[in-house]
Amino acid sequence: MTTIAPIERRGDVLAILDQRRLPHEERWLECRTPAEVGEAIRSLAVRGAPILGIVAANALTLVAPSSRASNPSGLMEELEEAAAMLRATRPTAVNISWAVHRVLVAARSSAAFGIGEVRAAIELEAIAIEREDRAACDAIGAFGNELVPEGANVLTHCNTGMLCTGGIGTAQGVILAAHRAGKRIHVWVDETRPVWQGARLTAWELGRLGVPRTLVADGAAASLMRSGRVDLVVTGADRITADGSVANKIGTYGLAVLARHHDVPFFVAAPVSTIDLETATGAEVPIEERAPQELTTPLDTPVAEPDTPAANPAFDVTPPDLVSAIVTEHGVLRRPYASTLREAVGMRERRGA
Amino acid sequence: MTTIAPIERRGDVLAILDQRRLPHEERWLECRTPAEVGEAIRSLAVRGAPILGIVAANALTLVAPSSRASNPSGLMEELEEAAAMLRATRPTAVNISWAVHRVLVAARSSAAFGIGEVRAAIELEAIAIEREDRAACDAIGAFGNELVPEGANVLTHCNTGMLCTGGIGTAQGVILAAHRAGKRIHVWVDETRPVWQGARLTAWELGRLGVPRTLVADGAAASLMRSGRVDLVVTGADRITADGSVANKIGTYGLAVLARHHDVPFFVAAPVSTIDLETATGAEVPIEERAPQELTTPLDTPVAEPDTPAANPAFDVTPPDLVSAIVTEHGVLRRPYASTLREAVGMRERRGA
Repeated sequence: MTTIAPIERRGDVLAILDQRRLPHEERWLECRTPAEVGEAIRSLAVRGAPILGIVAANALTLVAPSSRASNPSGLMEELEEAAAMLRATRPTAVNISWAVHRVLVAARSSAAFGIGEVRAAIELEAIAIEREDRAACDAIGAFGNELVPEGANVLTHCNTGMLCTGGIGTAQGVILAAHRAGKRIHVWVDETRPVWQGARLTAWELGRLGVPRTLVADGAAASLMRSGRVDLVVTGADRITADGSVANKIGTYGLAVLARHHDVPFFVAAPVSTIDLETATGAEVPIEERAPQELTTPLDTPVAEPDTPAANPAFDVTPPDLVSAIVTEHGVLRRPYASTLREAVGMRERRGA
Repeated sequence: MTTIAPIERRGDVLAILDQRRLPHEERWLECRTPAEVGEAIRSLAVRGAPILGIVAANALTLVAPSSRASNPSGLMEELEEAAAMLRATRPTAVNISWAVHRVLVAARSSAAFGIGEVRAAIELEAIAIEREDRAACDAIGAFGNELVPEGANVLTHCNTGMLCTGGIGTAQGVILAAHRAGKRIHVWVDETRPVWQGARLTAWELGRLGVPRTLVADGAAASLMRSGRVDLVVTGADRITADGSVANKIGTYGLAVLARHHDVPFFVAAPVSTIDLETATGAEVPIEERAPQELTTPLDTPVAEPDTPAANPAFDVTPPDLVSAIVTEHGVLRRPYASTLREAVGMRERRGA
């Protein structure tokens, strides 16, 4: 079966497929330091909540090879520094914080034994994070498939597939699982302005995977729903707060409102690592504001005058009452999310223990 | 006061400002035949419902100068042929049909007198259509201004200003009237994919006119509304059917649903010429489907793979129950639109008589 790998370990180099060049060119960035990985994240060469956790963990594996630290505490200092830098790259996604936290805990727990042990602990934790994400995607796909009717028209937003996870994807994992189960589904792919992750990445991935899909402008989703041509919406999530609010790519919240208005189910598919119980409500999620040039000068082509004032939030927040269900690797969560999310996180922690 | 003219008569030439080049270049297309005007309409060098009526009427003034007809009935045949071609250029906008009908009626009523009289009747009717549209815009602005609170944040979609009318615009006429009345308003300008009329045209016009504005991606409107940063939405219309359904640029219907969800008034501003009592409901409006390349290869730059299937409807239809009011030159119409629209059309016909 076709797979698409967004990163590759090559010795002490982390190779990152530059998603900004897709689908026209497969260029790999060879990162030798956490700083180079940080730049790849900031510039959106790699994006998508789950893969960002995997990439951040892998970035920390690059600290030891280039470190001059002569003892574990020196190395830990460098790791903490790299972790802080990585956390600051994309403020909305919680997976980066979650992954670097896991790696730091693993590193600390080996610090008493020596530098070699710390280095090995980091490597093992990064591998575990990736392996768990692959398994989580498979489970999300299997649970999500149950929600997809035979012959469904599915609408999705942004990119949530193999490029941005360690496996088959989250929302796209659900789509792929339904497709591979032989349901004759068709996918409406929102182009997803301003960075076109739908047009560039999702349409390309689904094409490679043989899933019938049609690209549409973001503004076309409403009339598709009104004419009965959307049976369900499924998106990923960059962060899910304790109350079940879903931070995701700008435009997601509007889709959720439209879905409610048209009695179309609105599903979110995400691994439990995306759940942030420390943040109580969606109102507290920091929303990354990106460069106005993405609107005034898309594709490096001036569309508006260059000095046109522009607001460019990268994410929005969908309140829990508009989310029909959250598909995780531990099952399909329903309202009240305050308790079902907590249970899912507990399940993960117990299995991890 | 600043004005922007989208067309100019230069003898027997109709000069059309090529809006595809804006805001970067002011290039004028010199059209000598109705066919050249038809091509300018089809290619979106000129667009926007009211100006399309004016342009179509002016296109018919080009028939006589290049005609070899030796009698009025020969000229009438050529006029009918040009009218049919013009009607077919953009199937959704009703103003083209409406304007060419008026010109043909005027031409026919002079046919008994001679070719020179027919030619003069056409010229006079084209001038009348343009002059009436200018007055209609002023009246729409004055009526619409009453709906705009001091300090309002107004969201608009597509382009509805001086570039696409004979005057200050429709929705943008409302905005400009409120601005010129000294209300300190601010406008959120939807970029309006796939052809960027908001980013290219509205942001540019409002900048020239000194109206504070901020460009946003279409997908950002929902979160702006949720955070209370939109006090009202106002758009234009390409066609309003007898029941009050509003066909307008793709994305408009979604905005209307979002506005309803957030208790934000959703206003439509359009001259009575946009009202099509012959079409009973929105379901009967033909929706123009444009080239998939506008989605796969925006700005002539491949974004998706060139053979990606894409659906590219140019318009959608907003049902009357989501329209808070329709601002016309004969006043602000409220539900039930079936009767208020009929009254407005009657008012126009009586004044025209």
